[in-house]
Amino acid sequence: MNFVEDSALFVNSGVEQPPMINPNAAALLKKAPQHLLQVHEYVEGIKAGNVTILSKAITLIESRLPAHQALAQQVVEACRPYGDKSVRIGITGVPGAGKSTFIEAFGKYLTKRGHRLAVLAIDPSSERSKGSILGDKTRMEELSTDPHAFIRPSPSAGSLGGVARKTRESIVLCEAAGFDTIFIETVGVGQSETAVHSMTDFFLLLMSSGAGDELQGIKRGIMEMSDMLVINKADGSNIDKASVAQAQYQSALRLFPLSESGWEPKALMVSSIEKTGLDDVLTQIEAYLTSTKESGYFARRRREQARYWMYETIDEALKSDFYHNPAVEAALAGYEQAVLAGKKSSFTAAKELLESYYKSGAFSF
Amino acid sequence: MNFVEDSALFVNSGVEQPPMINPNAAALLKKAPQHLLQVHEYVEGIKAGNVTILSKAITLIESRLPAHQALAQQVVEACRPYGDKSVRIGITGVPGAGKSTFIEAFGKYLTKRGHRLAVLAIDPSSERSKGSILGDKTRMEELSTDPHAFIRPSPSAGSLGGVARKTRESIVLCEAAGFDTIFIETVGVGQSETAVHSMTDFFLLLMSSGAGDELQGIKRGIMEMSDMLVINKADGSNIDKASVAQAQYQSALRLFPLSESGWEPKALMVSSIEKTGLDDVLTQIEAYLTSTKESGYFARRRREQARYWMYETIDEALKSDFYHNPAVEAALAGYEQAVLAGKKSSFTAAKELLESYYKSGAFSF
Repeated sequence: MNFVEDSALFVNSGVEQPPMINPNAAALLKKAPQHLLQVHEYVEGIKAGNVTILSKAITLIESRLPAHQALAQQVVEACRPYGDKSVRIGITGVPGAGKSTFIEAFGKYLTKRGHRLAVLAIDPSSERSKGSILGDKTRMEELSTDPHAFIRPSPSAGSLGGVARKTRESIVLCEAAGFDTIFIETVGVGQSETAVHSMTDFFLLLMSSGAGDELQGIKRGIMEMSDMLVINKADGSNIDKASVAQAQYQSALRLFPLSESGWEPKALMVSSIEKTGLDDVLTQIEAYLTSTKESGYFARRRREQARYWMYETIDEALKSDFYHNPAVEAALAGYEQAVLAGKKSSFTAAKELLESYYKSGAFSF
Repeated sequence: MNFVEDSALFVNSGVEQPPMINPNAAALLKKAPQHLLQVHEYVEGIKAGNVTILSKAITLIESRLPAHQALAQQVVEACRPYGDKSVRIGITGVPGAGKSTFIEAFGKYLTKRGHRLAVLAIDPSSERSKGSILGDKTRMEELSTDPHAFIRPSPSAGSLGGVARKTRESIVLCEAAGFDTIFIETVGVGQSETAVHSMTDFFLLLMSSGAGDELQGIKRGIMEMSDMLVINKADGSNIDKASVAQAQYQSALRLFPLSESGWEPKALMVSSIEKTGLDDVLTQIEAYLTSTKESGYFARRRREQARYWMYETIDEALKSDFYHNPAVEAALAGYEQAVLAGKKSSFTAAKELLESYYKSGAFSF
């Protein structure tokens, strides 16, 4: 693939010019808030580990401008061969579990051991109302000034499907930039955990010590998809409560069906303030990676995730095109009311809406 | 709505003729294995509680012939005003939990108390391989000869979406036929539990006493959607094991987040052979119904389920039309391989497939 010729900024395949004296780029700059580079400049910058260029590229991924999106796709495709090398860890927990302090503590623990860590977040705007705006650098002062860490705030808007795609593409760029560990952070209250689970190798659920009550806030099913439960705030006067919680969760975990990985999740205690228990967390994660890589589950799951996201993207697009169709938008509310009132069957309502959609012939592809 | 004129068998709106001397019906009979009646004949028969006609109508619902489907839709729509009056109970459990014996014991217990019970099953053929063919009358000899019970074997084929729709429409007919209690039975190993959960008022998970190990067979998340756990086979030498299982499950249930209904699920012990514990099961179900009807959750959930199924039907149809599109069918496997091999990104593959679909213009609506 020839990045220059494929580039939205292509002028002359014979000469590569810096964007500032590139008339097309200059034209684009009037519309675009940021300086656009050429595809190969993004790719080379990212491969060189230049986080400024990495940030610019992720901004392109998040941009709604078609020109940016086209450019972003080329950058992602070009980086793909250099990605897929990291360990992707999903971290979720209810607001109040101390996610930021844990990520900062565990993150520093990892970078001190020579790891390069990128922290991304999935937090669709639709779920913002439920609180906890993720990816805010000021939450992680130490980590955000750590040269071996890269913290990227959550995409500020969009459907879960859209945000999930942007995050998956950002993972590719971070991996190409040489980050060997990626945290994908999410709040444990929405649909986003399944999305995170489907793009990570290991899923960590963070709890504080209020077992039971606390789970009220957590979406059902999350505990069952977790590869590890971490009871945070196991310090000071809280230690006894934390041990009780750990025991309760550990026994609950035993009742869950074994996941396909064959891994038995443990409930661990940590103090993000006193930096205790972090060794266990790392040891467990490494044990999981060893066993799943030996069994072939790790690689198989990565491949299946890629296929999963192909189908997810298709299904998302089919629905999005249907529900944004003018004919459907005009009629949907009325049909929904008729169904809610029992005046029309779900099936008949669906059938009539589908007919008006396909007859409209107005498709965005 | 005039059922005669809308009927596939319409000859002459002035005269209603019995199908045997109706030339159109006679013509249809050559193609169709069963005697077709007119819409109003199905509806009146069903409303009169005629189970033979009810069975014929459900067979129409399950038929793939367009003429049958058109007729079935009219019958369902005509019965809808007389439905929606029963209590719908989803019953799932791994093969070996003793589902049939429990349904027979609990079913007889209910009919003896004057209830009229219909037992339907969701068991998509795609999941047959996982064993346990449901709805087999011979499993429930007493119940199948009970004049107050109606047992309908599972639709023998089709996608989950299709089978779920057929079951939902069969519920309408059974309710119009005066059955006040409907069991929807499923094996706890597939996707079908979510479907059952979305068409029932109460979800019962049947276990035998082998806590823990047994759950290996159960799909993750099912325990969390259950309104009641029933430990079966609490008899003979098994009683102690059953009590241990009950205690374990009860403590596990406490750790789950409370469902929207505000109901706290209990783990109960029964013996389907010795007919013990069935009182508790009924008492708990009645308590659930009372509290959810008072809180308004019961009615709200029914309405939301109808809306849910409108959107489910739409999403199913959009996907089905896409994946049955000749252009897509021809290209899909190649794209999937490219994605599995990491040669193409999920997103690019999806985008190209979507373009070829919408450009094809070949839609089944």
